[in-house]
Amino acid sequence: MTERKRILTGIRPTGSLHLGHYAGALENWVRLQRDYECSFLIADYQVSDYADDIARVRAAVWEVALDWLAVGLDPEGSSFVIESLVPEHTELTTLLSWFLPLGMLERNPTLKAEMADIETGDEKKKGRSVPIAFYTYPVMQVANILMPRAHLVPVGEDQLPHIELTRETARRFNREFKPIFPEPEALVGRVPRLVGTDGTAKMSKSRGNTIDLKDSADAVAKKIRGMYAGPPRGLDEPGKTAENPIFLYLEAFDPEQDEARNMAEQYERTGVPNKVLKDRLTTVLNTMLEPFRERRAYYEANMPLVREALADGTARYRAKAQETMALVRDALDLNYLEKH
Amino acid sequence: MTERKRILTGIRPTGSLHLGHYAGALENWVRLQRDYECSFLIADYQVSDYADDIARVRAAVWEVALDWLAVGLDPEGSSFVIESLVPEHTELTTLLSWFLPLGMLERNPTLKAEMADIETGDEKKKGRSVPIAFYTYPVMQVANILMPRAHLVPVGEDQLPHIELTRETARRFNREFKPIFPEPEALVGRVPRLVGTDGTAKMSKSRGNTIDLKDSADAVAKKIRGMYAGPPRGLDEPGKTAENPIFLYLEAFDPEQDEARNMAEQYERTGVPNKVLKDRLTTVLNTMLEPFRERRAYYEANMPLVREALADGTARYRAKAQETMALVRDALDLNYLEKH
Repeated sequence: MTERKRILTGIRPTGSLHLGHYAGALENWVRLQRDYECSFLIADYQVSDYADDIARVRAAVWEVALDWLAVGLDPEGSSFVIESLVPEHTELTTLLSWFLPLGMLERNPTLKAEMADIETGDEKKKGRSVPIAFYTYPVMQVANILMPRAHLVPVGEDQLPHIELTRETARRFNREFKPIFPEPEALVGRVPRLVGTDGTAKMSKSRGNTIDLKDSADAVAKKIRGMYAGPPRGLDEPGKTAENPIFLYLEAFDPEQDEARNMAEQYERTGVPNKVLKDRLTTVLNTMLEPFRERRAYYEANMPLVREALADGTARYRAKAQETMALVRDALDLNYLEKH
Repeated sequence: MTERKRILTGIRPTGSLHLGHYAGALENWVRLQRDYECSFLIADYQVSDYADDIARVRAAVWEVALDWLAVGLDPEGSSFVIESLVPEHTELTTLLSWFLPLGMLERNPTLKAEMADIETGDEKKKGRSVPIAFYTYPVMQVANILMPRAHLVPVGEDQLPHIELTRETARRFNREFKPIFPEPEALVGRVPRLVGTDGTAKMSKSRGNTIDLKDSADAVAKKIRGMYAGPPRGLDEPGKTAENPIFLYLEAFDPEQDEARNMAEQYERTGVPNKVLKDRLTTVLNTMLEPFRERRAYYEANMPLVREALADGTARYRAKAQETMALVRDALDLNYLEKH
């Protein structure tokens, strides 16, 4: 039997998860965990933007773990990892920083966008004081991928430059020292950026436009009733599906895609009342979310199991991390006292 | 009995040590170790400029330890610490990076000077690719001082801004989280920047103008014979002591300062042949260096003792570092699994 290939992916703990996370990542992770050795990282070293609200990060670590369990990630087959409980991440980050040039930081797509906002743009961000951790987090992201010697990283297209950087780093380390690291490959998935219920921007907690995975059936129904459904239109008036985000949601989540397509055609041809669309979406989402809610309720009533999932996954992962760091220190010849 | 105050200081391992190190630091450290709990750090995380020559760093770790033992640092009363064997340094660096603003990096005096060289100046440095570690090392220097919760840091005047940064960081952490860190004070000593034997620049290995602590008596005599001794001058011609670095050396190292001053007066009044000056300096230095050489020879013949000094000091220090990190994680409330 050949060893399964390793996948590393993760999420920052800033709150409980919503449909955007599910469509963009979790749905895919649930599938991937069957065929790969997956490590799911709760990236709590990467929350410098919440440094003044660590209570939130702390609460979010548990929320994220509950949501992961709720959607069906398997904490025994895969590892749930709390990044900061594996301080080897910081050590590898430091050692990589010896070799990586300052210029690479600004090739990171997320950082590039944020720094541009700070220098020129966005009112809220302009002139903001940037924490050092924010500026250097691309290095830690490279370290995160290299730590378990991952073969594959599920990402959206926009993160491809970052994977390329990680590959360059692996190649350089392997060439100059010892061949330790696989060159990780991007697993570019269908990663839609789900628009929020306000129809104007990406779904995100800070905009208050989310449907959370843990929302009750009533809460979901209520949010959908208030959801943006395109420009105002008479009851029997045709509309453009592209202007009505409800169709994006149906496309993303309706298991009966034929029916969703029929409804879309009818909408363009003769119109469909928003109430009908919204009822359909409510049914679709609540059908999907109900098993998540049941699993979540089970784990909320059994928090020691959540703790165990995090503790065991982190311990398994840390053992792997320590193995990697021993290889790295050996490759760099830093074990002064062992070999002299 | 009250606890002794803690001192943290250190040196980067880039080669064996010379008279410049002795006058600027070691001589003072030997005195300080009597009254303080001293930790002497071999700062091997801070050698990004030698990342392509780690063999040199590796060799230098042992050279530095030998030189420290040679000058009389006591590895039992004080701790000799290899920075990279205490990876907690990288963890504290990461956590501090959450709070410290990017702008602080450029307030570090050493970094400021180097970055200016890269942008505008020095031919060799202009446009050089800067490793990320170089850019962020001021944060690690702060972490180094905070790690043993040091009270005092021996520094030259030029490093005062850096100590002020460390104090600000300690204050901020203590105020926002828990009062863990003493606000370290600078211990500004007489830290002459010893000019090299070429009389033109600071003594430094890269300029080949050093007298090394481990140089043999013959090597010292030979280097002094070839030493720059001011502008050309007839045998009986008076000279200016300020133009002749031999007087700087005598001022720094001659235990009989009255005699050194007499010689200086005579030099200005009626002249003293360079040979007389050089013979005097040779005697002074070899008298000072001889016990160092003897101790060095002893330890070179007993390398397991050097290993023990490094291993024991590093282990003692790491225990203290782990204590600090437990306090830090508790203050930041990052022990998710312990308290839930």
